Amino acid sequence: MKPEHKEIMKARRRNIRLTVSYDGTAYNGFQRQNPPQVAVQNVLEEKLAAVCGDSVELAASGRTDSGVHAMGQVVNFFTDGTIPLDRLPRAVNSILPPDIVVLDAAEADRDFSARHSAKSKIYIYRILQGYIPDPFERNYSWNIHKELDTESMKECLRMIEGTHDFSAFRAAGGPPVSPVRTIYEASLEKKGRIVELKFFANGFLYHMVRNLVGTLVNVGMGRTSVQRFGEIMASLDRNQAGATAPAQGLYLYKVNY
Amino acid sequence: MKPEHKEIMKARRRNIRLTVSYDGTAYNGFQRQNPPQVAVQNVLEEKLAAVCGDSVELAASGRTDSGVHAMGQVVNFFTDGTIPLDRLPRAVNSILPPDIVVLDAAEADRDFSARHSAKSKIYIYRILQGYIPDPFERNYSWNIHKELDTESMKECLRMIEGTHDFSAFRAAGGPPVSPVRTIYEASLEKKGRIVELKFFANGFLYHMVRNLVGTLVNVGMGRTSVQRFGEIMASLDRNQAGATAPAQGLYLYKVNY
Repeated sequence: MKPEHKEIMKARRRNIRLTVSYDGTAYNGFQRQNPPQVAVQNVLEEKLAAVCGDSVELAASGRTDSGVHAMGQVVNFFTDGTIPLDRLPRAVNSILPPDIVVLDAAEADRDFSARHSAKSKIYIYRILQGYIPDPFERNYSWNIHKELDTESMKECLRMIEGTHDFSAFRAAGGPPVSPVRTIYEASLEKKGRIVELKFFANGFLYHMVRNLVGTLVNVGMGRTSVQRFGEIMASLDRNQAGATAPAQGLYLYKVNY
Repeated sequence: MKPEHKEIMKARRRNIRLTVSYDGTAYNGFQRQNPPQVAVQNVLEEKLAAVCGDSVELAASGRTDSGVHAMGQVVNFFTDGTIPLDRLPRAVNSILPPDIVVLDAAEADRDFSARHSAKSKIYIYRILQGYIPDPFERNYSWNIHKELDTESMKECLRMIEGTHDFSAFRAAGGPPVSPVRTIYEASLEKKGRIVELKFFANGFLYHMVRNLVGTLVNVGMGRTSVQRFGEIMASLDRNQAGATAPAQGLYLYKVNY
């Protein structure tokens, strides 16, 4: 966005904050793409513009990659549209495709930014254990063909809690920001054949959750020891860690402000 | 199948029984269709033929309609193929599309028929309550825009348990069979915003579950009283009952032999 364009947007009367849930399967991620590629943002901006009666440019808490899902993505936009807040979700949901849903709309302060005001985020990663797949889980989890040693995985999760340099789990190509992040909670819960991992942190590096999960699954499969996991983390070297876990198991669960 | 063709099939050495799960969203139901329409049976027969090395003709416990799902559909087929049972699921799953999964394979008696030997079946129907949809439920439940009076629905479920003439809930166009069925269990369970209905019976008429659910939802929404539900059932008249509930909430859960 050009600076003068940003000023035009800021001159609009309302700053609206939305909580959005989407099934990422069919989209090239959240962030706006040039057609014919379609991202969640393209679709949301078009439908919000129709409901608000002016152009819409969204800021989001962060991008999500192709195939990644969201239960609680947060976005904001400036508008002169006069639609009442309590009608907005229903109005826009009625024209959105059913894999994108606006859960909630709120009036925000003028200086609220879904991106810059975010204090912490929660991601969930779902793994399906067992060599028989589940047709209902094919787009919603990562199928690992054996039972995981979840006790060893939990030891590693305790290791990553706290403030650390997560360079070993940082993808090449991300923005040049500090690799230090604070993980408030990293936990594991079993739900039948599903292993659900939860990561609650003040922020995440590019591909950090998926790189952590790839390495944690190596521990769960007995390919990497708990001690080795600690060494990988301390090495600050991405080449030591496991492969990036597939996108379809990942959910942006919640953004806190 | 022509009678002589049936004899050829019966002359084959093995009768194999499979338990199959599928996401019905993309298919024109279970029963084989003429191309370009694609049913689950078309896909399964083609992939099983590739694995077994001879043509495959499936018999199923029953058809499921377009968009209806299965967690435990049962099928059988005769083959001279020599693939060991313990390798069959993995072999066929590796070439099946991921929305169809063979859960289990077993050697069956020569006179076992997935269709004719079935003793009872369990169907599940899932309803999502509330006016905000859920993108992850769009193909897997029926979204009702208000909270349902589940206590009244439970009273109706108790009414349908036992042996009754279910003509009021029978779709026109089904096969000319007796309308009397025995429901062993009809129950309701709340799981967050989801209301899950379970129907366990010795058999079901065409569209019987979906017609029951359509009428039960009218009760849950206060449009139809519990007493009126009883009158509808006793009328034996399909025109008295509610609309057919949509396919995507229905699951063939289990078939008992």
